Amino acid sequence: MKLDHIGIAVHDLQKAKKVYELLLNQPLDKVIDLPSQHIQTIMVETKNTHIELLQPLGEEGAIAKFLEKKGEGLHHIAFEVENFEETLQSLKNQDIPLIGEPTIGVKGNRIIFIHPKATNGTLIELCEKPPSL
Amino acid sequence: MKLDHIGIAVHDLQKAKKVYELLLNQPLDKVIDLPSQHIQTIMVETKNTHIELLQPLGEEGAIAKFLEKKGEGLHHIAFEVENFEETLQSLKNQDIPLIGEPTIGVKGNRIIFIHPKATNGTLIELCEKPPSL
Repeated sequence: MKLDHIGIAVHDLQKAKKVYELLLNQPLDKVIDLPSQHIQTIMVETKNTHIELLQPLGEEGAIAKFLEKKGEGLHHIAFEVENFEETLQSLKNQDIPLIGEPTIGVKGNRIIFIHPKATNGTLIELCEKPPSL
Repeated sequence: MKLDHIGIAVHDLQKAKKVYELLLNQPLDKVIDLPSQHIQTIMVETKNTHIELLQPLGEEGAIAKFLEKKGEGLHHIAFEVENFEETLQSLKNQDIPLIGEPTIGVKGNRIIFIHPKATNGTLIELCEKPPSL
């Protein structure tokens, strides 16, 4: 199991990126729009994983709701799993509650979220390992 | 900059470790007491980083306060920096507020926290790279 990324909810991407630019000592420029998820994101690459700074596009979507309820901060952590199907089945067998059914993530791989009530308040995303190119 | 770990605040370590045991498909047994920080911790090793499940020892300390105020969940993220002194100076030069002065972490290296008001609500720990053995 590999930590694929950490998601951080912010009101203002441009403001948020500044401290990471300072820590990384390099500019972060690329803003990616994901209108289907109602977010804009900046990817912060670290040596061993990456951080997704997530700003809502409009008032809909999970990030807008999170900000309204809890304010800015750490939103979720995502693990890449080698055997997505097997892991999913094993969670279901243990009655671990999942949020809906798997959907397709930005890399074209399947993703699913575990309900935070099963994980001590931590929203955990599981991502299928993308196929090797 | 490398993500050293993610800290997650929980009320009950034994309960919290179960979902990670399921995801990792291996038992997590070692509980480490850190009375100076008023916490007990279980380390969850992933392929590229680790997670610290943090349970308060008593009612004192940052984790107990966090749980009281915000409930269980993601508490902080920690980055290992190669040039601790230089990074610290650069943050000070940019007027990024730090929490106190550097202290000594469990690995004998220096650590410092950046105030979340400067980082969109995310508590960020910076760890000095431990000396090579």
